[in-house]
Amino acid sequence: MSQTIDIAVIGATGTVGETLVQILEERDFPIGTLHLLASSESAGSSVPYRGKNVRVREVDEFDFSKVQLVFFAAGPAVTLSYAARATAAGCSLIDLSGALPADQAPQVVPEANAQVLAGLKKPFQVSSPSPSATTLAVVLAPLLGLLDLQRINLTASLAVSAQGREAVTELARQTAELLNVRPLEPTFFDRQMAFNLLAQVGKPDEQGHTVLEKRLVRELRQVMALPSLKISVTCIQAPVFFGDSYSVTLQSASDIDLVKVNAALEDAPGIELVEAGDYPTAVGDAVGQDVVYVGRVRLGIDEPSELNLWLTSDNVRKGAALNAVQLAELLIKDLL
Amino acid sequence: MSQTIDIAVIGATGTVGETLVQILEERDFPIGTLHLLASSESAGSSVPYRGKNVRVREVDEFDFSKVQLVFFAAGPAVTLSYAARATAAGCSLIDLSGALPADQAPQVVPEANAQVLAGLKKPFQVSSPSPSATTLAVVLAPLLGLLDLQRINLTASLAVSAQGREAVTELARQTAELLNVRPLEPTFFDRQMAFNLLAQVGKPDEQGHTVLEKRLVRELRQVMALPSLKISVTCIQAPVFFGDSYSVTLQSASDIDLVKVNAALEDAPGIELVEAGDYPTAVGDAVGQDVVYVGRVRLGIDEPSELNLWLTSDNVRKGAALNAVQLAELLIKDLL
Repeated sequence: MSQTIDIAVIGATGTVGETLVQILEERDFPIGTLHLLASSESAGSSVPYRGKNVRVREVDEFDFSKVQLVFFAAGPAVTLSYAARATAAGCSLIDLSGALPADQAPQVVPEANAQVLAGLKKPFQVSSPSPSATTLAVVLAPLLGLLDLQRINLTASLAVSAQGREAVTELARQTAELLNVRPLEPTFFDRQMAFNLLAQVGKPDEQGHTVLEKRLVRELRQVMALPSLKISVTCIQAPVFFGDSYSVTLQSASDIDLVKVNAALEDAPGIELVEAGDYPTAVGDAVGQDVVYVGRVRLGIDEPSELNLWLTSDNVRKGAALNAVQLAELLIKDLL
Repeated sequence: MSQTIDIAVIGATGTVGETLVQILEERDFPIGTLHLLASSESAGSSVPYRGKNVRVREVDEFDFSKVQLVFFAAGPAVTLSYAARATAAGCSLIDLSGALPADQAPQVVPEANAQVLAGLKKPFQVSSPSPSATTLAVVLAPLLGLLDLQRINLTASLAVSAQGREAVTELARQTAELLNVRPLEPTFFDRQMAFNLLAQVGKPDEQGHTVLEKRLVRELRQVMALPSLKISVTCIQAPVFFGDSYSVTLQSASDIDLVKVNAALEDAPGIELVEAGDYPTAVGDAVGQDVVYVGRVRLGIDEPSELNLWLTSDNVRKGAALNAVQLAELLIKDLL
């Protein structure tokens, strides 16, 4: 039995892929050879890993039998193009794109439903949920036993980095133009993003729901094993570079014990509970951190069966790359 | 009977007071003499009105018997100090501070509960609700007959202008410092406001609720004449200069007819309904306008008894100053 495994990361030049490589290094993941892959446009560049620059190669030319595990950190189309090839070569995979059906690659958040992994057979296929579903699952997991949960209502204010580097650059550019009283010419966003809130992220369907919103509902129900949980969700785009924030209301069928809720949040893995009266922010707390920050824990006004929370987490790190690496850590003993 | 009335505006140098004076002029309100008043610090400056600069005088020295109507557009303390003196002088008042109890000065939004004014006696005492309650009341009014409303859940993302000019200046200054990679030194806000979201506006009470949140619940229940309506509310501070945005979920006891909802919103006064698939923003639509913009009108995901909406309105204009002037227009025939 080897003491290391060989790994590939697809989408290594994206914000999530690059963070994933950095976390693998930080957590000293037992890697033999690391293969960094991307589409033909990004191949040829390089990404730092353990003091060296690792060249990014073209995914289409990669022989998946050279690795035991591959992370899919590109878009759904890339996962759909190469997942079958990886599996056929005996390579396990962790997908971050949401492209694979739950019965093929279950959505797993270690803090919420790690037990699902025990039922899988090699080569493993596991999905790491969207940053929103991951963040919410981490916080809901310790609370489920304390509530007779009827409904979740949430407004997710997403950072522009969820849409990649171009969106980050555009927010900075728009802001500078406005401060310098120059005419605003939106390119990436279709309107002014600086000093503004956009009510939807991506195109809505006929019913008015976006892909992100439907994905969040689907994944959260699956991770929490509550297939008919009512979830009201609005995902908006905030003029924030990194770090998602969530205004969450949980409705219970009976009165909620706030002391027990606080104790459960205090003890739970993956959570940092901010003291009463204070609150966490994306920029000041969550960015670069490995936990979901929770604050403003309170019952409803005149409504003791309602629990309100404010969450913030690093969408690229805790919401995506770290969750994928945590999954790999749970699978490693079966891959060595 | 005179064809004009004499009016005083207290807090004339603030964002709301100045906009109020501007709207009185725009709508050609039949004013004989306009008296602009403020605390001793702001007295002595002047505010433009009908091509002249009107000097702002000290409220403490004002003889309220000189006017038939006074707008209180300063803080609650100012209203509490001078409302009784105005009433004793036979002067009617419209208060924007939320300081007066509902049985003394009912909260009124013309689009929602104008009929309340008919029951009042001279000198009138009327409250213009907070911008959040005003905006929500305008939109709820045409929907109430179409829903068996059980609960409202909302996240209000408030513009910094709600906290006055200093907050506006500070957001601009923080943003410029960050873009120029200079160290950030928060002064007005206690932390980074630029490119960030703050989860609460003002200090929370022991239960975790802020004054703004409790005021919104109290006023909205009163305006809608639904004293036990369940309202879950989180008010956050967004890095937006002007214009509040609201993510709203209405829960009904039965399935909702979306066609009727859209028709009602289309026909209602004070509302601009944005076409399906698109959405309004604070900066692009609401600011400077006399209507509440409504978009993203949709049922819940797998939940036909849930209605989701995105609202945005000019917090200073539609949310405050214009509502107060609309109230004055409804009272004018009894004041002339």
